[in-house]
Amino acid sequence: MSTPDPGLLSLNTATVRKQWSLAQAIAGCARHCIRGISPWRHQLHEMGIEAAVHAIKGHDLTVTGLCRGGLFPAADAAGRYAAIEENLRAINEAHALRAQCLVLVAGGLPKGSKDVAGAREQVREGIAAILPHARNAGVPLAIEPLHPMYAADRACINTLAQALDLCDALDPHNEGGLGVALDVYHVWWDPQLASQIKRAGKTRLLAFHICDWLVPTRDLLNDRGMMGDGVIDLPRIRSWMEQAGYTGLHEVEIFSKLDWWQRDADEVLEACKERHQQFC
Amino acid sequence: MSTPDPGLLSLNTATVRKQWSLAQAIAGCARHCIRGISPWRHQLHEMGIEAAVHAIKGHDLTVTGLCRGGLFPAADAAGRYAAIEENLRAINEAHALRAQCLVLVAGGLPKGSKDVAGAREQVREGIAAILPHARNAGVPLAIEPLHPMYAADRACINTLAQALDLCDALDPHNEGGLGVALDVYHVWWDPQLASQIKRAGKTRLLAFHICDWLVPTRDLLNDRGMMGDGVIDLPRIRSWMEQAGYTGLHEVEIFSKLDWWQRDADEVLEACKERHQQFC
Repeated sequence: MSTPDPGLLSLNTATVRKQWSLAQAIAGCARHCIRGISPWRHQLHEMGIEAAVHAIKGHDLTVTGLCRGGLFPAADAAGRYAAIEENLRAINEAHALRAQCLVLVAGGLPKGSKDVAGAREQVREGIAAILPHARNAGVPLAIEPLHPMYAADRACINTLAQALDLCDALDPHNEGGLGVALDVYHVWWDPQLASQIKRAGKTRLLAFHICDWLVPTRDLLNDRGMMGDGVIDLPRIRSWMEQAGYTGLHEVEIFSKLDWWQRDADEVLEACKERHQQFC
Repeated sequence: MSTPDPGLLSLNTATVRKQWSLAQAIAGCARHCIRGISPWRHQLHEMGIEAAVHAIKGHDLTVTGLCRGGLFPAADAAGRYAAIEENLRAINEAHALRAQCLVLVAGGLPKGSKDVAGAREQVREGIAAILPHARNAGVPLAIEPLHPMYAADRACINTLAQALDLCDALDPHNEGGLGVALDVYHVWWDPQLASQIKRAGKTRLLAFHICDWLVPTRDLLNDRGMMGDGVIDLPRIRSWMEQAGYTGLHEVEIFSKLDWWQRDADEVLEACKERHQQFC
């Protein structure tokens, strides 16, 4: 594999969320010549959407995604309705930001439920309910399969095949506006990864998130590694993405309570850039 | 679902490994009228194989499996050869115990490797190398797919479909002696679970391990729940097993540093019996 184009790097702001506000992350990306950014909604609300749009436009950053929509399953109809309303607002925000997609994290089991098949059906219904508005707004919806260790409490969509089955069910003619966000952390282990990336193809591959899987992993949620520090064969996965037609950015998303959130944020951004060149 | 036959309960000795030796666990099962047991090899070596065989026979316990063989991938040929030799010894021990199967935990990535496909190939070669001896000894080999969160460091076989593909590759005519151990902890999240259990069928379903998935899970390795304390729909999975023809025992295997390993072992066995009746 050739070294990736440094211009393809994007920063998911969660990577420095303990150190920086969104305004600081935007300025940081500009200062470090990182051309893409992917903010989280709570940070966006803190900064104010107009201010964020202005700052992002001012630095000419590409918004590789807005995190996040989804979280559809709920114990009752009111909860499901509230989730859909929240997703419609997220679509509007993604539109305002000109985000390349709204990332959908499906949601897990409603409290007290053991019905994972039922939760998956609620996710299907939820995405079906918001897809027309997303298409009108020109905001592609990117279903992100999450690692199976999050199936109970975060997302019951857990493999790329399953996410693509959902896309096929809701968009049988591949009309666009619906696809997947592929995060290596969640899918690197999947024996079907290469074949499912190929199946997804250019129109369904909406985002590519990078980090690494540490051995040992000390925390289920917040112990992701910087590229190169773990076991994921990033160049190989990138090659599968590119062979399938993906030409988008490479978004670094690292939750790291014990390491990277403890460091100076400028140092983290420098590491992202170096590691992207060395290990991706 | 009807309540399970209490005579189908088996104890994987890991469930009380902090409290009891194998000799104590054998006596404990007899005292609590638990008719099956599944020991670990290091405990077996501590007790001595002859003594264990004698005690197990004396109490007329069914050995639902021996834990464990596998761990095939290695950085060099010497390491791979040593792993195969170790597995041949494990087969002999399983034979001596009249174990219903030898459980195979595949093994993860060799140190320094990022080649998960290569590790999987080494697992295939390893099982191919030991299968003739296992068949001669009358010891079925049960490949246990482990949760994807263990793909790097414990087992690179991570779904039931993948384990069955391996069975089909190594035993294309389903001649027996090769199958899977299904542990709900590892596979409960899998959207293909029902269809793959059906695919496995009676001849490939060699063991059924039960416990529960806690929310939150505080430790990747040693925070399994007692049946009923988590989100796994155990009666549903048991019904799929039974519909596929499985008539074997239900083996409780709980690694629980923070809870069950802290309790009196007799209390743990009572809980296993009660929860088996209530929640399985």
